[in-house]
Amino acid sequence: MKAVVFREPNTQITIEDVELAAPKAGEVRVKIAAAGVCHSDLHVKQGDWGMPTPLVMGHEGSGVVTELGEGVTSLAVGDHVVLSWVPPCGECRYCLQGHEARCQKVATIVAPKGVLFDGTTRLSMTGADGAEETLHHYLGVSSYAEEVVVPASGAIKVRDDAPLDVIAVVGCAVATGVGAVMNTAAVEPGSTVAVIGCGGVGLNVVQGAKLAGAERIIAIDVVPEKTSMAMQFGATDRIDASERDAVEQLFELIPDGVDYAFDAIGRTVTTEQSIKMLGLGGAAVIVGLPPTGAKASFEPLVLGEADQRILGSNYGSVRPSIDIPALVDRYMDGQLKLDPLISGRRPLAEAAEAFDDLEAGGVLRTLLIP
Amino acid sequence: MKAVVFREPNTQITIEDVELAAPKAGEVRVKIAAAGVCHSDLHVKQGDWGMPTPLVMGHEGSGVVTELGEGVTSLAVGDHVVLSWVPPCGECRYCLQGHEARCQKVATIVAPKGVLFDGTTRLSMTGADGAEETLHHYLGVSSYAEEVVVPASGAIKVRDDAPLDVIAVVGCAVATGVGAVMNTAAVEPGSTVAVIGCGGVGLNVVQGAKLAGAERIIAIDVVPEKTSMAMQFGATDRIDASERDAVEQLFELIPDGVDYAFDAIGRTVTTEQSIKMLGLGGAAVIVGLPPTGAKASFEPLVLGEADQRILGSNYGSVRPSIDIPALVDRYMDGQLKLDPLISGRRPLAEAAEAFDDLEAGGVLRTLLIP
Repeated sequence: MKAVVFREPNTQITIEDVELAAPKAGEVRVKIAAAGVCHSDLHVKQGDWGMPTPLVMGHEGSGVVTELGEGVTSLAVGDHVVLSWVPPCGECRYCLQGHEARCQKVATIVAPKGVLFDGTTRLSMTGADGAEETLHHYLGVSSYAEEVVVPASGAIKVRDDAPLDVIAVVGCAVATGVGAVMNTAAVEPGSTVAVIGCGGVGLNVVQGAKLAGAERIIAIDVVPEKTSMAMQFGATDRIDASERDAVEQLFELIPDGVDYAFDAIGRTVTTEQSIKMLGLGGAAVIVGLPPTGAKASFEPLVLGEADQRILGSNYGSVRPSIDIPALVDRYMDGQLKLDPLISGRRPLAEAAEAFDDLEAGGVLRTLLIP
Repeated sequence: MKAVVFREPNTQITIEDVELAAPKAGEVRVKIAAAGVCHSDLHVKQGDWGMPTPLVMGHEGSGVVTELGEGVTSLAVGDHVVLSWVPPCGECRYCLQGHEARCQKVATIVAPKGVLFDGTTRLSMTGADGAEETLHHYLGVSSYAEEVVVPASGAIKVRDDAPLDVIAVVGCAVATGVGAVMNTAAVEPGSTVAVIGCGGVGLNVVQGAKLAGAERIIAIDVVPEKTSMAMQFGATDRIDASERDAVEQLFELIPDGVDYAFDAIGRTVTTEQSIKMLGLGGAAVIVGLPPTGAKASFEPLVLGEADQRILGSNYGSVRPSIDIPALVDRYMDGQLKLDPLISGRRPLAEAAEAFDDLEAGGVLRTLLIP
């Protein structure tokens, strides 16, 4: 099958003929309908996060189940699924406590080692020298391909009537953004919320905050077109951070500071801004992630005296099997906007161009269609 | 009456004849039975935290109600009370949400301005030049005195059979330490907990963690006598941080990192250590507080990917009227140790010596007895 292979940072990605092995016990094969091009893929491509290489890119996608590995009873051939880049093991203490986004096997095996649960990969190709070469999975998904083999817990059954070439984005951007609001922060009705960064994830934080009943939602970006879009997603106010200090502008709008400030960018400066925007008891939520080793600072005296919190949010602290179908339902019910998040669709062969667009800015989500 | 007056950082405190005005509406007068000498008072004395001066020191204490201001019905003359340095206003949005430790009027008026709710003080003295001089309250309490006038919500009625010259420490050290475990962190049974700093507050974090059912409680200090004492308070393991890096030693004991790490010291290095000790989904809790302007840093990528949290804890996030009587009951029932926390008792006139002892190290809580 065709798949997008990444070899080392700052080299061009390539479309290769890749061998996909059959699903082993507990795994399923999915024919990909659409796969989103996300900033996390770009971080990997730029070498910001070390990953085992070579790998097949992509961690967001949707498709149809085509083959079941031994023992899989939770899915059937023909099921429509959204892929989850946390396939919960269901056995570790975190999964058993309901904190599936913290799954220990995913955090220690699948994600950092680029393999499935048994420590091996289903991906390989014949190298230039004719020798067989093992390829790694990216976050247990590798959706920039015609097909994937994933743990059954990473293929989340959703309703058949939802368009696969839209709901692909639920698997990362929507789950991450809305989940950060609903799960990580548990924003209460009447709250005040600031959102720094109005890209794919930030817009989902905005619409998540609206769903949660936030009273004020302040959209912040250096690109006015992005905050305009955020107003369509439910923001009540906007700040043009290209003009002057966003924190100063925020306190002009909300003199007491906000209850929740989401950093959907993940630069040191935006993370620190999110902390400085908080009022009494406020929580800064780290959604966008910086390169390895980047640091942000805070004043412990202020955090302590004001009973404030800084919350890391991995994958919106979601429980994939519960939250992803519910998010798809909310889209179908008109409560969540997904279509405006999708800037365009390209064939798989144009993955490199899709990344160029993302780096150039101005696009939200490009979906690759195999 | 006699009271301990602080004029400016790094000068000696003095015992002065101070005038205490009658309680106004909503306030009560309390005859002090005992008042604890806390590191926060030392921070003020050393100029680490700017406070309006001159002031009467002390924010922890116990006593007996002697006079009711207009409209006070929640207390009666003769009631035994523990003083709370957060006297919740009961009207702001934080109080109404049950987050009394975040009371907006306390955070914006009482604490920073050194006054009671109406913006004035009940404390004054005749200066060296014969002129009347206004003195400020410290955190709405000013317990290093024979009597205090405080908001009624800051005098918490407790059972009459509890010894006042012991339970004074419930008002700060115990509420702060146990509250950080029970309220701020909400430690679950079976959790792993690290406690950095085994002084008055740290020992209360240790016994709070034991009450919460933590499975492992790792006591960390540079003074072996303090971790020995922590073992008596319920710690299961101890780390001598004077030997080598505490984080390295912690991971030898708990290879996955801990669920909760409490910084009961409040130096940049200990705050950062507490964050580095966390496992998946772990929470660092900032209990000890550093000087104004001190910063600590963290890696947003790690916090995000591991779904971790940094939680500021003001006054153990307590609800004074509910938590303080309950903590006194737990002491009387033998579930909380208070007596070993009290290093000794001195007359009010020896306040300066009590501070000297605290600065020299080796004492936990000295109670001043007017």
